[in-house]
Parts: sequence; C-alpha cells; structure tokens
Amino acid sequence: MQVVVTGGAGFIGRRLVRQLLQQGTLLGLDGRPRSIERITIVDAAAADDLTDPRLEHVVGDISDPGVVNGAINPDTSAIFHLAAVVSGMAEADFALGMRINVDASRLILEACRQAGHGPRLVFASSVAVYGGAPSATMRDATAPTPRTSYGTQKAMVELLINDYSRRGYVDGRVLRLPTISVRPGRPNAAASSFASGIIREPLNGEPAVCPVDPETTLLLLSPSGVVGCMIHGHDMPAEAFGGNRVVNLPGLSVTVREMVRALERVAGPEVVSRIRWEPDARIAKFVANWPGAWDNSRALALGFPGDQNFEDNIRQYIAEQSH
Amino acid sequence: MQVVVTGGAGFIGRRLVRQLLQQGTLLGLDGRPRSIERITIVDAAAADDLTDPRLEHVVGDISDPGVVNGAINPDTSAIFHLAAVVSGMAEADFALGMRINVDASRLILEACRQAGHGPRLVFASSVAVYGGAPSATMRDATAPTPRTSYGTQKAMVELLINDYSRRGYVDGRVLRLPTISVRPGRPNAAASSFASGIIREPLNGEPAVCPVDPETTLLLLSPSGVVGCMIHGHDMPAEAFGGNRVVNLPGLSVTVREMVRALERVAGPEVVSRIRWEPDARIAKFVANWPGAWDNSRALALGFPGDQNFEDNIRQYIAEQSH
Repeated sequence: MQVVVTGGAGFIGRRLVRQLLQQGTLLGLDGRPRSIERITIVDAAAADDLTDPRLEHVVGDISDPGVVNGAINPDTSAIFHLAAVVSGMAEADFALGMRINVDASRLILEACRQAGHGPRLVFASSVAVYGGAPSATMRDATAPTPRTSYGTQKAMVELLINDYSRRGYVDGRVLRLPTISVRPGRPNAAASSFASGIIREPLNGEPAVCPVDPETTLLLLSPSGVVGCMIHGHDMPAEAFGGNRVVNLPGLSVTVREMVRALERVAGPEVVSRIRWEPDARIAKFVANWPGAWDNSRALALGFPGDQNFEDNIRQYIAEQSH
Repeated sequence: MQVVVTGGAGFIGRRLVRQLLQQGTLLGLDGRPRSIERITIVDAAAADDLTDPRLEHVVGDISDPGVVNGAINPDTSAIFHLAAVVSGMAEADFALGMRINVDASRLILEACRQAGHGPRLVFASSVAVYGGAPSATMRDATAPTPRTSYGTQKAMVELLINDYSRRGYVDGRVLRLPTISVRPGRPNAAASSFASGIIREPLNGEPAVCPVDPETTLLLLSPSGVVGCMIHGHDMPAEAFGGNRVVNLPGLSVTVREMVRALERVAGPEVVSRIRWEPDARIAKFVANWPGAWDNSRALALGFPGDQNFEDNIRQYIAEQSH
C-alpha cells in the first residue's frame, strides 16, 4: 500500500507519518490490514529528520501540478491531505490562501480523478467553517457560514470532496478539526496559536500572552487524538458516511479559564503566573466566530476517538517533551 | 451607471436586459435611482435581436480571462452573473461544469477585486444546492448538501461570494432560484426542462413527455418573478443581508399533478391530453434531490416579490406568446 501525506513535514503531518510507520498497516477496501510499503511526504519544508526506508520526501509547492501529479498515481491507495495555509495567513494574503487551500486541493482531486481508481482521501477541514453566531447545536448538517477566508476555503473543498466522492473519483473523508492543543514547538500564524502557547510557553519557563477573554470557550482536540481520528477516518468503510463525507470530530469544550486552571493543577501557580492577559481584538474576532462546542454525536457514533479531559492533554504534552 | 449581464443572451438574461432597458435605472449606493448608461451582455451566444444604443455585446467564453477582464472595469457598477452550464450538462461533463460554473465565477470575482471598487454582484444560484433528503424546513441557513455537480458548483461560489463580500471586494447578493416555469422556447439540457415543457408544448399543440411521478412536488417561480427578484436583490442595501448574502427566493410549491390541473383549468382537457407520462429514472433522480418547498420567510421579509399561483404563471406565458 502506498500512502501520500501532504503537509507531512508539519506538526500534525509528522505525527501522523510516525504513527503510520509505527503501526505499519492501514485497512484496505476489504476491511483487512494491508502493509504500508511507501509513504510519500509532500511539503514545502523538508522533513529530513524523519528517516525510514519506506519514506519518500517530495519538497515542493503543493499548488504546482508537477509536484502533485508526481506524487499521486494509480498505485496511491490513500492520501492524507493536510497541507494548508493557516487562518491568520489566509486572511492576510487572500490570493495565497486561495492558491494553497483551494487550488492545490483541486489539483489533488483532479490527480485522483485522472488516476481513475478512486483512492481514499482524508482531508483536514476545520472548525473555522462555522462562523457568525456559532452555537453548541452545530451539527455536521448545520450550514457552514464561515467568517474567515480560511473557513471559506475549507468549506469549498468539503463540497468538492463530497461531489468527487459521489462521482467515485475519490473515496473522501472530511474531518473537521477542533483547535489542536497542546501543540509542541513554536507559535505559528494561526489565530488559534495561543491555545497551545498559553500552556506550552509557561511549562517551558517562558512568558505567554493570552489575547482573549478567560470566558472564551474553545473546542479542543489533542495531537494524539487528531492522529487517531485521521487513521480511524481512513479505515472506516465508505458506506458508514451515508451521503455526507463530512464529520465534526469529537472535541473538548473548555473555557480559557478552565485551561489555565488545569495547567495550575498539573504544574502549579508559578507556571501559571507566566501568562499575561493582553486582549488582541484581531485574534478575539477570529475566535469569537468559531464554535466553542458542537454536536459531535455523529463522530462518536462513527467510532471516532476523543479526549477524556484537558488535564490529560497537558500531561500528554509534558510526557512527550520529556522523551 | 454601467451594468454587466453574463449569460445575457440566455432566456432569463435576455428578459432581465429587456427589463433593465425598459426601466432605465437601478438604485445606486445612496439608495437613489441612477440611470443605466450601458449594459454589457457577455455570452457564448449572440443576442443580436436585442438592439439598443445602450447595449454592448461581448460574444465569448466566460471562462476566458480576456473576455471577463475586458467586460469588468472600475466603471462597472453592477454585475448580474447568470452564465452557467445547466444541471444535466454539468453532470454529464464534469470538467466543463467546473470550468464555467466555478472557474468563470472566480474570474469575475477576481476582476471585481482587481477593479477595487466593490461593485454589486447579483449571482443566480439554485435550489440544486440542496439534496439528499430535502424537506420543507430548508432555510437559508440549512447546510447545502448537493447531490449533483451543478449544485456543488453553485454552493462553492455562494461561499466565495460571501467571503468576497465580507472582505469588501464585491457587494454580493446570491439568489437561490427555484425551478423557472413557464419558460418559453425549446427544451434544454436542464434536468428541470420538463417543468416548462409539460405546459408549453401542449399549449403550442405539441406532445410533451412528463418524466416524473405526478405526486412529485416542484418549487416554481415565473420568469417575471425571477427578473423582479434579481432587480430587487440588486437594489437592496447591503446591510439588509446581515452576514449572509444568500437568499432562498420565494417559490410556489406545486405537485406536477397540480400543474397539469392548472393547465386544464386554463386551456382545457384537449391540451392536457397531449402530455404523455413516461418515467425517466435519470431525471427523477435529479428532481427527487431538490426540495419541493423551502422556508422562504427571509426572502419575503426582505421584500422579494413572489408569484400568486401557478395558473397565473400559465396565463402570463400565454399572454406573452400572443404578443
């Protein structure tokens, strides 16, 4: 089995690749495990630290037809399409967001259509497809009303994957990701970057800025949770989705105040004292448009794994850093 | 004021152009009537029979950047974007549908963005954005779940117009059109073509085939109704839309049996006897995915004009043919 991971040098992609290498199999169309012979990582950045004889690295622009068509062929069984321009950047550079988030996704879908064998495609969509006046009753079937270009671009590709799947060009699985926390590494241009920063930086002895009100509710999923959902999303039989390939993944609904309290319980008041509260209207505006909760009963019924509580997510982060 | 009408040589476009020429004005941004100095018709087909010193004819491919950029410039105040590949054709030729229904729409939006003055854009979307298990409770905020490529393509452009509007690149107004009946002329490749054919052909002394069950419920709007809605949609202040530029237009919810009974009341049993009932699974599958009713309370609250009853629509058709 040959697998392609776009954005495979990114944080989630890298973690997904490691998990795939470790487990060594994915389910085939017959529902039985098939061994993974090759994983092709397509990313603008190199992931040279990931070494395994099964890995192939393609460093290039995902919106370049040559790059996409070189990576996807009739032997490709599964594609995990994670490459994207994040929310803050797609808002700041509209044309860039359209090129990477929409046009590159279309190239991938077209490469699948041309290949002609209907490969499985797991697409990372986002909570950002919702906007306006989000509420806890948002179901998979609630109309996306994005209030960001990023959310718009993701919602457009969701529609396209449903149509490509209906036509048999791909076997799509669209996973709407909550905000991922706790991410390791450095802050990024995503408007949600603080949702990891206010935990990670204090734990690392560094100051952190929280740009939103403590009563802001976020919908969170851990790094291991999202990778588990992606593999589960791949392995499910297509029939389970019915006519709609889009799933709101399970998320924890937590206020920023609760996140900080969880940090205090895990790491103590000194760590928490490193957080400075400095409202940032631009960030707050983004976040106010994302639902702090949604109805994820369909995801749970479909067997997608979720997290237990946010303290566990913090402990997961600490445990992984100490390796 | 300069106006562009894409698809202006088509049936609805032609009717819209005639109405615009006749009334001679549209509302400006200040809410006051401004005289229309020029209407540029962009269409693959010529509309030479439309003659008026205010008309400019551009015959060309709407997915050709040269054509679009030649028609839209900083002096363009309003664009009515009606050009499209119809449902049956977009299903039969996927690439063509994507090119005309999606890519050309993007060219138009980009031309507006480049022009930099945020012109008004009235876009003809469709009842076909709904699918699956449509119900009468479909509101403007119900998630589009198209089950056709045509509906998918329209729903993608809806999202894009909302985002372009939010960013101020255009002042968009997306009107979801019910099935238009009674259309004059000949049958076309739209799956809904029969909804006019079963009225028009018998009235013209010709046989007609009804490919769906008489209990099939359709959502209908008359030709004059849709043109009235387009002009109303243009003239409304942007604030009236709130954050969502998409409106389900008012439609009559009528079964095919009721349509035929209305025809009998207006034209007699001999006319109705020209209808042959021959189920066509392909057409029935399309139509079963469209809602036969929807919640159009928002459209009515926004002042969009609807029809009174289907008998009046038949009489409207007859009266216009006798001119």
